[in-house]
Amino acid sequence: MLESIAMINGDFVDVNDPVVTMEDRGYQFGDGVYEVTHVYNGRCFALQWHIDRLFRSLRELAIPGIYTPEEIVEFHQALLDKSGFKEGGIYLQITRGTAPRTHHFPEQVVPCLTMTMRPGDRTQGELMRDKGAKIITVPDIRWLRCDIKSLNLLGNVLGKQKAKEAGAYEAVQVRDNGTVTEGTSSNFYLVKDDVLWTHPTNNLILNGVTRRILMEKIAPSLGLHVVEKTFTMDFVKKTDEAFLTSTSMEIMPVVSIDREAVGDGTPGQVTRKIQAAYQALIQEECYR
Amino acid sequence: MLESIAMINGDFVDVNDPVVTMEDRGYQFGDGVYEVTHVYNGRCFALQWHIDRLFRSLRELAIPGIYTPEEIVEFHQALLDKSGFKEGGIYLQITRGTAPRTHHFPEQVVPCLTMTMRPGDRTQGELMRDKGAKIITVPDIRWLRCDIKSLNLLGNVLGKQKAKEAGAYEAVQVRDNGTVTEGTSSNFYLVKDDVLWTHPTNNLILNGVTRRILMEKIAPSLGLHVVEKTFTMDFVKKTDEAFLTSTSMEIMPVVSIDREAVGDGTPGQVTRKIQAAYQALIQEECYR
Repeated sequence: MLESIAMINGDFVDVNDPVVTMEDRGYQFGDGVYEVTHVYNGRCFALQWHIDRLFRSLRELAIPGIYTPEEIVEFHQALLDKSGFKEGGIYLQITRGTAPRTHHFPEQVVPCLTMTMRPGDRTQGELMRDKGAKIITVPDIRWLRCDIKSLNLLGNVLGKQKAKEAGAYEAVQVRDNGTVTEGTSSNFYLVKDDVLWTHPTNNLILNGVTRRILMEKIAPSLGLHVVEKTFTMDFVKKTDEAFLTSTSMEIMPVVSIDREAVGDGTPGQVTRKIQAAYQALIQEECYR
Repeated sequence: MLESIAMINGDFVDVNDPVVTMEDRGYQFGDGVYEVTHVYNGRCFALQWHIDRLFRSLRELAIPGIYTPEEIVEFHQALLDKSGFKEGGIYLQITRGTAPRTHHFPEQVVPCLTMTMRPGDRTQGELMRDKGAKIITVPDIRWLRCDIKSLNLLGNVLGKQKAKEAGAYEAVQVRDNGTVTEGTSSNFYLVKDDVLWTHPTNNLILNGVTRRILMEKIAPSLGLHVVEKTFTMDFVKKTDEAFLTSTSMEIMPVVSIDREAVGDGTPGQVTRKIQAAYQALIQEECYR
């Protein structure tokens, strides 16, 4: 496999080089935010939506935005140009920067931007999107600001690890009160009686870029009725279809949850329509 | 101020040198654990208790322990010897290590140990411990595994920042259901009718080393009755005394909460006895 191309504060470095200081607050507190953008045909998909969310996350944590959105776009293009990779993902994170360790924000601190572009083809993803994914449920143990795309990801890491150990593709998280929130790295949806259900955007889920594209572009274009309300596993068990969305998963059908089939155990027809509409948007933005 | 002395995987480095890779999971997920040990008179206080907790945290996150407890002790001594510092704090963290970014645990990964020794005198702390601290309350927005001393500290960071902005010393956190858990970097206690109250050790608080010393050594020696039960702010408002404990705060009297005086607004008599007992333990371990 090809190595990732990496950048720190706009300068190219080897991804395996030591470039971060040990008192970077990203390293000691997870005090930072990130984005992952998908590259198709040598172009970034939905980059502006990612950048908008990046700056929201920075504002929520009061991390100074020391780069303009235009510079962030340029860094993405520089990684694409340098790597020559046509398919893959660009990872970006900004931490509050390096200062002697204190819990509160340091007085003087300069944020640190690191980025990688990792090559990857879509073959594996396409296979999975075709046949659908088996998932499990796990308790949602995360903090109460999941709307910030922060580096405090241990809850997600432990949930995804449980999925892996169960031979499942993803773990969908369930709060103490029974509310089903989202996957460890994806949003979660049901289709029941031709209505699309998903958790409302609040502090308990991340408002995914793919989720926003689905809500704001695809659902209206398909004339799909959307309900953003909380629901429990009892409701999930009666659903006709289920699927996940994320930048890297795209639109991923769910065919079983905790070893019980969803619907007839194959990807649903509404899910298929949404997949097709998403592919059309990728074609339009990245292949024309 | 003197610079901190730093180590990575047992080798001395400059604390400001870039020594960490950007794909260290500590940097991208907060996937690691830490400890802070107080140094008095050139000796580490309660080091074995910290090391025991360190290995528990590692086990809970399934991070392989690639150093023995004896090696961890040696690294602390090496930092003391090299620095010549007599007073201060030794910070230690272990992350899962560096691997191409995936949420689940990577197959092959070598944990990374970083340590710093920061010099510091106790003058400021002594003044505060003498007059007592003003604190505020904030919502507890942290994840549900606060028993692990992990690097996912954004909830604590945001709470401490609120305290700082309010001119307060610490913020004590209150769960959605009204339960008062602990400070952002300390445990929290009440004394009411000569009984010591504190939150039970479960997934919602960190079992502090100072807390353990208080529960297992000081309270029995003072004949103090201890109740480990949850309580709400209504109960806090009727307390006679309140205080915080942590490795760096030691035993810190609380004289006001959200601008309302605790008791008569001065450190309480039971708190003073606990302070004296704690100083005696430090004397015994580090000055004899």
